[in-house]
Amino acid sequence: MNKEEILSIITDSSVGISKQKILLSDMNTADIAEIFEDLESEKIIRLFRILPKAIASDVFVCMDSDHQQLIIEALSNVEIGEIMNNLFIDDAVDFIEEMPANVVKRALKNVESEKRKIINRILRYPDDSAGSIMTTEFVDLQENATVREAFTTIRRTGLDKETIYNCYVIRSDRLLLGTVSAKTLMLARPKERIGDIMDTNVVFAHTTDDREAIADQFQKYDFLAMPVVDNEQRLVGIITVDDIVDVIVEEHTEDVERMAAIVPSDDPYLKTSIFQHARNRFLWMLILMLSATITGTIISSFENGLMVLPILMSFIPMLMNTGGIAGSQASTLIVRGIAVGEISLGDVLVIIWKELRVAMLCGLGLGLVNFIRVFVMNNKDVLLCITITLSLFCTIIMAKTVGGILPILAKRLKIDPAIMSAPLLTTIVDAVSLIIYFSIAKVILGL
Amino acid sequence: MNKEEILSIITDSSVGISKQKILLSDMNTADIAEIFEDLESEKIIRLFRILPKAIASDVFVCMDSDHQQLIIEALSNVEIGEIMNNLFIDDAVDFIEEMPANVVKRALKNVESEKRKIINRILRYPDDSAGSIMTTEFVDLQENATVREAFTTIRRTGLDKETIYNCYVIRSDRLLLGTVSAKTLMLARPKERIGDIMDTNVVFAHTTDDREAIADQFQKYDFLAMPVVDNEQRLVGIITVDDIVDVIVEEHTEDVERMAAIVPSDDPYLKTSIFQHARNRFLWMLILMLSATITGTIISSFENGLMVLPILMSFIPMLMNTGGIAGSQASTLIVRGIAVGEISLGDVLVIIWKELRVAMLCGLGLGLVNFIRVFVMNNKDVLLCITITLSLFCTIIMAKTVGGILPILAKRLKIDPAIMSAPLLTTIVDAVSLIIYFSIAKVILGL
Repeated sequence: MNKEEILSIITDSSVGISKQKILLSDMNTADIAEIFEDLESEKIIRLFRILPKAIASDVFVCMDSDHQQLIIEALSNVEIGEIMNNLFIDDAVDFIEEMPANVVKRALKNVESEKRKIINRILRYPDDSAGSIMTTEFVDLQENATVREAFTTIRRTGLDKETIYNCYVIRSDRLLLGTVSAKTLMLARPKERIGDIMDTNVVFAHTTDDREAIADQFQKYDFLAMPVVDNEQRLVGIITVDDIVDVIVEEHTEDVERMAAIVPSDDPYLKTSIFQHARNRFLWMLILMLSATITGTIISSFENGLMVLPILMSFIPMLMNTGGIAGSQASTLIVRGIAVGEISLGDVLVIIWKELRVAMLCGLGLGLVNFIRVFVMNNKDVLLCITITLSLFCTIIMAKTVGGILPILAKRLKIDPAIMSAPLLTTIVDAVSLIIYFSIAKVILGL
Repeated sequence: MNKEEILSIITDSSVGISKQKILLSDMNTADIAEIFEDLESEKIIRLFRILPKAIASDVFVCMDSDHQQLIIEALSNVEIGEIMNNLFIDDAVDFIEEMPANVVKRALKNVESEKRKIINRILRYPDDSAGSIMTTEFVDLQENATVREAFTTIRRTGLDKETIYNCYVIRSDRLLLGTVSAKTLMLARPKERIGDIMDTNVVFAHTTDDREAIADQFQKYDFLAMPVVDNEQRLVGIITVDDIVDVIVEEHTEDVERMAAIVPSDDPYLKTSIFQHARNRFLWMLILMLSATITGTIISSFENGLMVLPILMSFIPMLMNTGGIAGSQASTLIVRGIAVGEISLGDVLVIIWKELRVAMLCGLGLGLVNFIRVFVMNNKDVLLCITITLSLFCTIIMAKTVGGILPILAKRLKIDPAIMSAPLLTTIVDAVSLIIYFSIAKVILGL
């Protein structure tokens, strides 16, 4: 059944509720959420109410925050309580973080007090920390239990856990001793002791660890889940791979935005107000605009030369743009190499040597094309051709080297390398390329 | 034990092999690979040989391709066969894809013939397809089996499967009927029929589907694995979330490279030859350099005006750079919005309206600062101030609108939006901002 058929059945008031209910119960919750988001408000509320309780919370989690708010505002306190109590802690925290104060208040008021305490504790972890993305619903086992007993525990409590595929072995004081995967349990004999089959070589995170570093560990070890401990090594939660996928995508967006000289924001483009958009972009535009004063001053200082040979002006954008792209190509590759852990601080000399040679190759090729173009378009003026081509060649060498060094330098100064690539690089490359150009023009053309 | 301690033990020839073996057996395979990669070639080979067979292949998978080649070239045919036969199909394919022909030949010669056939089949799928990242080691169950029988199947075959947490129910002709998660199995009663508890609402991929679209599905549904079927809906493989994490990171790198006007490449920066680097970057540099001929022509055409008032030249880089960043901020946000599925083709008017207003806000702020700066630095020449400020304002409006529209246009023309953002945007913004500048200067300053 395709989306249109489903829509026509669930929005047709002549179709009985029970038929609609059966149809929805058979669907994937992410698909239900997607379909609901296309409907009018009152239809969403009506259909949300006929969802079986077991799947209502799952659908709720998949909806965007505007629709979540719409639903919470329409439901009774009892209904809100049912949804909140069925949410996993990490999903509840994600939801709460996006809501305005009055909705948060109402949602938390109707949740069980034990769960409310946990939610409040997780809300206090910094935004980018392991603690903020963990969930507290995991399966814990005792060292002395047998495999058979472990299965009993899982069968009894498993439905309410975010994953049952990684179980955690803890002492009575919650100290983390080891992990057992469901695979190990299923392949083990029923009488074996958990303590004998558990993996004690556990890779774990601390609540305050950076979530990007955790994502790297998931990538390295191919984890499905990872335990999170507090300062006393007591198990407080787990992070699951589905949340890590979201972290990776969010961190990428931040990187891309920083590289384009935008202050990163969590909100989607269409949902960000124009004032917020302007605020996220203004600062770097301002810095770039003001730093262009340097370039302006350099041009003014060569005014006399330009007055003698005005054609020289027309090559300025070509030099600056080619230099700009040469530099940003290099810096982008280095920033990305640092982000994926391929390039480290020690590689700076290797990078410079590599960029120098790449720049020579590119510079020779572009220089040749440029020479021919200038020669043909400017009355076969050989001295002019040499001036422009030599400037271009030196600009490319300079831009690629600076572009290669800046991100490493930023990393060493503990600044995000992505920030360096756009504004600072542009300013340096523009200024230096003009100085190169005018110096060469002075010597060769005798201005 | 930290990395240095481990290194000192495994490289110390006075320590017995059995002790080294025990130490390594206790470690995570990804960590062993990381430590091996820091050693000299002969030590790697020696230590690799003392690894228990069960973990040698896992360590091999975690190593980079240079070290994999080193090991394969040092091992005997029998040893190669053992490793190859223990690799999961998807890992074997990844490894084969990176090796030179002679290594591929030797590796495939020593693998079981059945496995060799499957590897060869998967190697034929296009690089970006679902088929190329799937594995064929999954648990399949019969509809009529009971839960108890399913567990027996899993216990018997599970060790060799990439995941046992998603099992696939197929007919005797391999047609995919449904899926059962290990969670469902563990929570079910032993006598229940698989056909009664399986989920028949299966989201699956075709072998030829784009891997980026598959990654979106994993994100939407929080999958751990997804079945892949052929044209006749027969189950041929599964894709697991660990490979999807790699796909997301790789696709992101490609996007970033395209945005920076680089032809994307799979190879890491440090391992790419300078010729390859130059080739990946040359084309877009050339296009940008040549397109700057347009800008040059526009400047030349206004030469007389510039000769009268040479100070006008010094503002060209400021206008072009501020316009450039204004445009790239907008296009980056739209490209990213399209990539994460937040922005669709229908949003073009919303985007234009949004960018226009954001541009006005930024333009007003920057215009004010610019007015003051030019006023102070240029002898309080009000007409000059108005000319520059008005040009800046119009340039920002134009740049943000063009930056907002171009990626959508690219998407509509089925070109990758990321490609549009750097070269074409720069060319358009540079040319139009100069035309705006010179037109305004003509009117206000009467040049």
